[in-house]
Amino acid sequence: MPRITRRDRSDAPSSPAATPGISRRAVLGLAGAGAATAGLGVAGGFAAARAGADAAGPAGPARSYAFAGEHQAGIVTPAQDRLHFASWDLTTTSREEVVALLRRWTAAAARMTQGLPAGEFGPDSGPYDAPPDDTGEAANLDASGLTLTFGFGRSLFVGADGADRFGLAGRLPAALADLPHFPGDVLEPGRTGGDLAVQACADDPQVAVHAIRNLSRLAFGTASVRWSQLGYGRTSSTSTAQRTPRNLFGFKDGTANLKLEEPELVDDHVWVAADDDADEGTDSRWMAGGSYLVSRRIRMTIETWDRSSLREQEAIVGRTKGDGAPLSGGTEFTEPDLAATGRGDVPLIATDSHVRLAHPTSNAGARMLRRGYNYTDGSDGLGRLDAGLFFLAYVRDPRTQYTPMQTVLARDDAMSEYLRHTGSGLWAVPPGVASGATMGTADGAYIGQGLFT
Amino acid sequence: MPRITRRDRSDAPSSPAATPGISRRAVLGLAGAGAATAGLGVAGGFAAARAGADAAGPAGPARSYAFAGEHQAGIVTPAQDRLHFASWDLTTTSREEVVALLRRWTAAAARMTQGLPAGEFGPDSGPYDAPPDDTGEAANLDASGLTLTFGFGRSLFVGADGADRFGLAGRLPAALADLPHFPGDVLEPGRTGGDLAVQACADDPQVAVHAIRNLSRLAFGTASVRWSQLGYGRTSSTSTAQRTPRNLFGFKDGTANLKLEEPELVDDHVWVAADDDADEGTDSRWMAGGSYLVSRRIRMTIETWDRSSLREQEAIVGRTKGDGAPLSGGTEFTEPDLAATGRGDVPLIATDSHVRLAHPTSNAGARMLRRGYNYTDGSDGLGRLDAGLFFLAYVRDPRTQYTPMQTVLARDDAMSEYLRHTGSGLWAVPPGVASGATMGTADGAYIGQGLFT
Repeated sequence: MPRITRRDRSDAPSSPAATPGISRRAVLGLAGAGAATAGLGVAGGFAAARAGADAAGPAGPARSYAFAGEHQAGIVTPAQDRLHFASWDLTTTSREEVVALLRRWTAAAARMTQGLPAGEFGPDSGPYDAPPDDTGEAANLDASGLTLTFGFGRSLFVGADGADRFGLAGRLPAALADLPHFPGDVLEPGRTGGDLAVQACADDPQVAVHAIRNLSRLAFGTASVRWSQLGYGRTSSTSTAQRTPRNLFGFKDGTANLKLEEPELVDDHVWVAADDDADEGTDSRWMAGGSYLVSRRIRMTIETWDRSSLREQEAIVGRTKGDGAPLSGGTEFTEPDLAATGRGDVPLIATDSHVRLAHPTSNAGARMLRRGYNYTDGSDGLGRLDAGLFFLAYVRDPRTQYTPMQTVLARDDAMSEYLRHTGSGLWAVPPGVASGATMGTADGAYIGQGLFT
Repeated sequence: MPRITRRDRSDAPSSPAATPGISRRAVLGLAGAGAATAGLGVAGGFAAARAGADAAGPAGPARSYAFAGEHQAGIVTPAQDRLHFASWDLTTTSREEVVALLRRWTAAAARMTQGLPAGEFGPDSGPYDAPPDDTGEAANLDASGLTLTFGFGRSLFVGADGADRFGLAGRLPAALADLPHFPGDVLEPGRTGGDLAVQACADDPQVAVHAIRNLSRLAFGTASVRWSQLGYGRTSSTSTAQRTPRNLFGFKDGTANLKLEEPELVDDHVWVAADDDADEGTDSRWMAGGSYLVSRRIRMTIETWDRSSLREQEAIVGRTKGDGAPLSGGTEFTEPDLAATGRGDVPLIATDSHVRLAHPTSNAGARMLRRGYNYTDGSDGLGRLDAGLFFLAYVRDPRTQYTPMQTVLARDDAMSEYLRHTGSGLWAVPPGVASGATMGTADGAYIGQGLFT
């Protein structure tokens, strides 16, 4: 069928949509793009202008983040309010088709993060006899701070049967080793793993859902959704200027998280350096400037938790429920005094408390940049809500920064009684894409390009 | 165990939480309550003041709605951005325990809708050796426009075996008849029915989730969650001042919805009158001032939809995708001209289009007040997103305002090819609770009181 570039609808009189529609979004998007920063921005690094006088519009600042940059956006970006995370299985056996998909995803991501439709025509102004190149449900919404962060699973490099599926086995980073089985893991295959992953974060859930849905549409015939997860109410403040949110245990979560105001710590603990794998016998220099993302779907048995006493809850966490201060005293940001004891020389912060076991001093100084979200996925059919934490943490090396800590927590943390890990993923998150008008085209840069060249 | 009213934590030095915590929320909540209206409010009937200078706080206006009123809030209330809907099965056989649960729910709902914790002590200042009377995850959030709307399922009156479970069979409204099986229904028991339902709407999902979770906590031992559903991005504008939102087909949805600016239509089509059942041989005068809520979980096969042409999509809907104007011309709010024809005398609005078949003139003038939300619940394990519409509509009588229209739509609507109804509920939504300090106590009014007295 010949593709036409102007719509043919002469049978509809006086249609107001004869000119390309969705202009408000386009205008807003371009305004956002003009004000955007390089995606490296820490606090203040976003366009703070609010969506003008339209009181019926979406709440929150009409901010946007550039897609291109040294690092991918969505890692040190101040955490947005909503999450849609998805994982795909590749259904192709062609390396070229994988590259073509990554090019399409790059072009669409560069547009959608600026509040533009996924394709140039948008939902309403393309060829009338072809499917629209945007699905349309975000047409009147602004960028809402959307970031799209791409990751590669180990199965992209080496299949379950050990096969070198796409000629990438020699580029497998040593750090992308399978996570071990932890006590308390009840991982469901339908919530675990995958070849490709995208973390979509935005302040409007419809914007995050729209982005994942359009990426999935662009993957048709090449990859299909393996699982996806919605989240809300970020749990891990990435900035001291952001108030620490609360998890579904009702406690502040992320007080001791790596903060964006600590750029040297972020450099040390988040970003992969070119020579990180120098002694590992693998060529993963393509990961320089990237990071590793650990995703864990952690169900909380909230009904049981809700019947435990305030005393028990605070002892398990090691902090007060109201202010989040360590039980050794002070305020939320006071450093816990793990040595302090009370009556009868009993430690004020219990030996099996979460704050003690997760503390860097209990973990050889390991830190991570957490970026998790609460989730509620209906009920479990047994009269209980299926709710908890979709844990997301960016680290330079999960072998030292995640696995040892989780091994200890799963075994000794008093909180583990109330947790079940039902999903898991480990993702190599490549560096950012170089900016340019040809991004995503046959001539331009694309996400993960270093891996394929 | 003796309950103490001050916390006993003399072993914790210098705790900042010795005074009742969560004061910011309490202050905000009370401020909101002072500005609240009677829940009858139409456009403009909410406290429009934004949450002051705390830029890190939740987005959106810090509005609150009174819980008490002639009608329940959450029906004509301008639609908030987020939904958590839940259904419970009663596990008790005691009528007194059902009443006690409704009293507890009333007291908690009256508090939470004002931004207060579910119980008087809140998450952090009650007896230290008892479970907190609020779970805490909304502790730093304001009321966020929370409304809680309670409904009764037919099974509360008559059990599956025909039993008069709680001595209420004689009060069963005639309108609370089971919905028929419609073509295209693939209803799942775990998403359908239940004895009690609550619609929680708020502008912050964590506030809506917190409310349902605390109601569920208060139901422990009396009722257990049967199913729950999260939704986002309201799909049915209830006011011409609210921009019409888009559903996951990418089209504006709710253009022809009953609008709050049409109070006489709302009276005629939404609120039950005392004598509505006068000829039905049942005593359901307790429903006067109430309404009936139809809830339908409608999965959209979005992957298939996304591969259909713009022409086909618009023909199925009967409106343009961009502006939502009827295909007979004009703008979004132009009345569709169902008689208009184009080339070859073909109707501009197809005979099997959604806008034609759902139009009041095709349905004996029937109207409804729609209040639905989009949903995305991960993937279906077959490479597709599980996404669609959680349809909510308030009507005075579902037998005339819902069933005939859905019968036609399920059979003839071209859109039906892309829809699967996977969950269903029909709820008798009683009138509001009379205001008063004793609301929910043994001496005070409670939700559904007219049914039990």
